[in-house]
Amino acid sequence: MSVQEIKLNDLKPEAFIEEQCRLISEQVGPSKAVNALSGGVDSSVTTILAYQALGPRLLTYFIDNGLMREGEPESVVYAMKRLGVPVVLLDARRDFFAALKGKTDPEEKRQAITDTFYKGVFGRLVKESGAPYLLQGTIYTDVEETVAGIKRQHNILAQLGIDTEKAFGYKVIEPLIQLRKPGVRAIGEALGMPVSMYNRPPFPGPALAARVIGEVTPERVALARKATLVVEEALSGLEAFQYMAILHEDRVTGMRNGKREYGFQIEIRCWDSQDAVTASPTKLPFDLLRKLADRMTSEVPGVVSVTYNVTAKPPSTIEAV
Amino acid sequence: MSVQEIKLNDLKPEAFIEEQCRLISEQVGPSKAVNALSGGVDSSVTTILAYQALGPRLLTYFIDNGLMREGEPESVVYAMKRLGVPVVLLDARRDFFAALKGKTDPEEKRQAITDTFYKGVFGRLVKESGAPYLLQGTIYTDVEETVAGIKRQHNILAQLGIDTEKAFGYKVIEPLIQLRKPGVRAIGEALGMPVSMYNRPPFPGPALAARVIGEVTPERVALARKATLVVEEALSGLEAFQYMAILHEDRVTGMRNGKREYGFQIEIRCWDSQDAVTASPTKLPFDLLRKLADRMTSEVPGVVSVTYNVTAKPPSTIEAV
Repeated sequence: MSVQEIKLNDLKPEAFIEEQCRLISEQVGPSKAVNALSGGVDSSVTTILAYQALGPRLLTYFIDNGLMREGEPESVVYAMKRLGVPVVLLDARRDFFAALKGKTDPEEKRQAITDTFYKGVFGRLVKESGAPYLLQGTIYTDVEETVAGIKRQHNILAQLGIDTEKAFGYKVIEPLIQLRKPGVRAIGEALGMPVSMYNRPPFPGPALAARVIGEVTPERVALARKATLVVEEALSGLEAFQYMAILHEDRVTGMRNGKREYGFQIEIRCWDSQDAVTASPTKLPFDLLRKLADRMTSEVPGVVSVTYNVTAKPPSTIEAV
Repeated sequence: MSVQEIKLNDLKPEAFIEEQCRLISEQVGPSKAVNALSGGVDSSVTTILAYQALGPRLLTYFIDNGLMREGEPESVVYAMKRLGVPVVLLDARRDFFAALKGKTDPEEKRQAITDTFYKGVFGRLVKESGAPYLLQGTIYTDVEETVAGIKRQHNILAQLGIDTEKAFGYKVIEPLIQLRKPGVRAIGEALGMPVSMYNRPPFPGPALAARVIGEVTPERVALARKATLVVEEALSGLEAFQYMAILHEDRVTGMRNGKREYGFQIEIRCWDSQDAVTASPTKLPFDLLRKLADRMTSEVPGVVSVTYNVTAKPPSTIEAV
């Protein structure tokens, strides 16, 4: 591929920021640019970098797709506001759930979210804004995994031969494309972001849809959201790379109050990794896993079974969907 | 329920054996009795007890339903032969897979196996034998769980109001019905069974069908069989009550040779328990779980993900299906 990686050791954050601000500024000129903030490290760093370069000529949207974690849309917008960056919050939950209805294949689900986002909701916003530039938080690993055919990242377009100017009427600017995650975090730190923002564990593009095996409905996302809250509260104190709760489609036999209950299973994954290319399950204390299972089965309605994934990547991947 | 439990502390194995042999002998008289040996502790103890009482007037069948573990039909028959008890091995794999075809609901699967066994294969055998008595290894916990509606054990008939004499033309004799598992093991030991036979971890009535979530096909049972072999080799040295590998119907994303592979997930369960009424997941060393996952993903075709269940019973049950 044609993108040149900047290794963490070679990265000089201040010089990188200055250079990227200059490039964004030069390219956009007196015109406007838009971007979508997801709340993840990549899009947050992109937003702040671009806002430094463009000021109010940057229009940043946060699109609530109904697949976010508990309280996430509000807290992400508020955190940016505190850094002086204005963000427009848009409720598009109905569009996304309509597109996901009846879909069970992971690739189709991913595609439905991508299409609803690019061709639908955000596509319309970009068109209406009249901005000829779109800023995206694509990083080196996204390109690599998409090119290798491991996973189709939602934000990879140019590398797949899609001419966004012809297809959608705008040019894409990807200031972080030469960096891997640790590099992005270093830039975030240098930009003065709070540590909770630049050290935030990664969260997948399709958000909680990636944590639901099978059909993604509002009810099933609500269960995955509750399970995610429990797992994040229990594991946030650890130094793990990423941790998650996955709602299975398979039902398993359980019992409650002496009666059989055909219930849900939640799978917990917690990863040690440097760059998500390879990863190992974190050696969590067994008592912690037991307590986590007890909380999960008592706080998430219908859950009777909790497992912990013990497979390395490869042959596993970080996410199940 | 009308059955009176004999607690382990009150059990005198020699007296129990003498008494049950006398009862079986009196009931069957000069006539014949049949029984089906599954290889589990309960049916093995029943077989030896009844053979002691009846000698060659007992006809024992081992029915290969295609759902057994690797090499199990042959090894069970051979072990009985070494104890002087003749067993007829019958291949009924096609009958069972035909009955299971297309069924995904656990209750329907269980029912299909029960019906194929009682109304089909074994029912025919009993009828052909002309024996008016059937010996069954029903134990106290089976009755209890069936009556409580937690799980419908395959061998509970009388307690559900089924008059076997009217329905099938034979009377059922259940010499172990007052005992729980530890009591049965004590009887096995007193009968001179090898420790590997009377201390054998319990295995469910529907055999590997209980270890396959979703449709039970010869191919899926073959995967569960391989996974079971791996888990039993890895965990047999421990003092756990029961351990198992479960093939999920859900597929998860994995990767092999740098390419995405939409693969299978195996769930491992390993239980500490006294009597299966309540149970806790065994605190297995993390390294052992990691090695188990490595073996599973390299030795069982298509498996990309392995989990360990960390939920207690209740709200989980021992088996998933």
